Amino acid sequence: MPLPLNLAVLGTAGSGKTTLIRAFGRWMERELGRRVAFINLDPGVERLPFRPSFDLRRHFTVRGLMRRYGLGPNGAMVRASQLLERGAGRFAGEIRKVEAEVRLLDTPGQLEVFLFHGGGRLLSLLDGTTLSLFLLEARTVLDPAGLTLARLLSLSVQLRLGVPTLCVVNKVDQLGGGLEEVLREDLPRLEGIPGMEAELAGRLSSLLREFLPPARLVGVSAKRGEGMERLHDLVQEVFCACGDLT
Amino acid sequence: MPLPLNLAVLGTAGSGKTTLIRAFGRWMERELGRRVAFINLDPGVERLPFRPSFDLRRHFTVRGLMRRYGLGPNGAMVRASQLLERGAGRFAGEIRKVEAEVRLLDTPGQLEVFLFHGGGRLLSLLDGTTLSLFLLEARTVLDPAGLTLARLLSLSVQLRLGVPTLCVVNKVDQLGGGLEEVLREDLPRLEGIPGMEAELAGRLSSLLREFLPPARLVGVSAKRGEGMERLHDLVQEVFCACGDLT
Repeated sequence: MPLPLNLAVLGTAGSGKTTLIRAFGRWMERELGRRVAFINLDPGVERLPFRPSFDLRRHFTVRGLMRRYGLGPNGAMVRASQLLERGAGRFAGEIRKVEAEVRLLDTPGQLEVFLFHGGGRLLSLLDGTTLSLFLLEARTVLDPAGLTLARLLSLSVQLRLGVPTLCVVNKVDQLGGGLEEVLREDLPRLEGIPGMEAELAGRLSSLLREFLPPARLVGVSAKRGEGMERLHDLVQEVFCACGDLT
Repeated sequence: MPLPLNLAVLGTAGSGKTTLIRAFGRWMERELGRRVAFINLDPGVERLPFRPSFDLRRHFTVRGLMRRYGLGPNGAMVRASQLLERGAGRFAGEIRKVEAEVRLLDTPGQLEVFLFHGGGRLLSLLDGTTLSLFLLEARTVLDPAGLTLARLLSLSVQLRLGVPTLCVVNKVDQLGGGLEEVLREDLPRLEGIPGMEAELAGRLSSLLREFLPPARLVGVSAKRGEGMERLHDLVQEVFCACGDLT
């Protein structure tokens, strides 16, 4: 059995992580005959559209922490972060036992919980190759600052987690076109961003363009299952590059 | 009455936003005789150590949304984001009525709720001058990638919200020294970051150093009330620069 490919899907609340994981997992099973496993690392989710081989909720849930310790939603979230961080080694050990060609990891609804609390350590302890997919909603990349922000955040996620990171723009179905153009253009439209100096804009733009080429960004509609093939091609490309991140 | 200074404090869950707001607000009242108002934009907080002049929880709370719609914590958070976004204009209007020299705005425990859902619009509708303080825990900036990440994220916040952003490193009391050195050094230690090319590291490092000078970063202990004067000096410096962000 070859070493697995771990794909950690990160994104803001409501960006469609769980829906993407289901759609992409099913697509790989159906179209490529891949042996896919679903891993749930979100202690705040209540309904999952797939059966996880590892489920963090067997250890704790946000709702359970609210009840048990009389905490508010914020307090319970912080507590959950601490538990994720402390248990990272143990959880990684359990995930390593999940045999699959591709492991799809769903992360907490609150991006920062994973980013700042043990997520990087957990990923570093997995066997096989690990990539992360940073998911954003299409509408957030359509304003002038959006695309640059998406790229900056992708880069931040990559730095923080220490694994190659692809930027996935979800919910493209909600737009009447326009995204393709933005993505093809690949010129962050930085002019006119408030509080942004022209020179910083230009330099940042060229830096990001050079180091995070357009191929690193893909638009999908997880809900409609669109864009799965392109996403897979991109993942495969980065996977095969084996550490060559350009 | 001069136009107010609005300070929006953003940060990850548990970074100490509320504690900083209280400490900084009290310090400005006591030491400078400023007329300070506290604004709560976090629908998930349960206890506040100050009395807010505007409180988003009068409109909705995360716990209330869980109960009313039978939602889980994640679902309620997403719903809260939507409500914040839709009501941004109205909430800004209410905040404009709060008379003060300094308005301190506490934002949702989940950074991205404010960042991606109407936060920028709300801030743009306020009267006076608006800055944001991006709060991070000291321990997150001590690993090699941490300081660069902090700066990248500050820049992202600034881009997203369209207002000058200072990076505030909180909980410096929890470290046995070391942060001062890191901050003084101001050379993001990028070598050895996994998944980071040497050239990208170097270029990014020099770009960030040039455009986000050390003065833009300050260490505090909100809990002990330390670093308030330096924080105020920095805010004042950026405030007086009136749009000159360097």
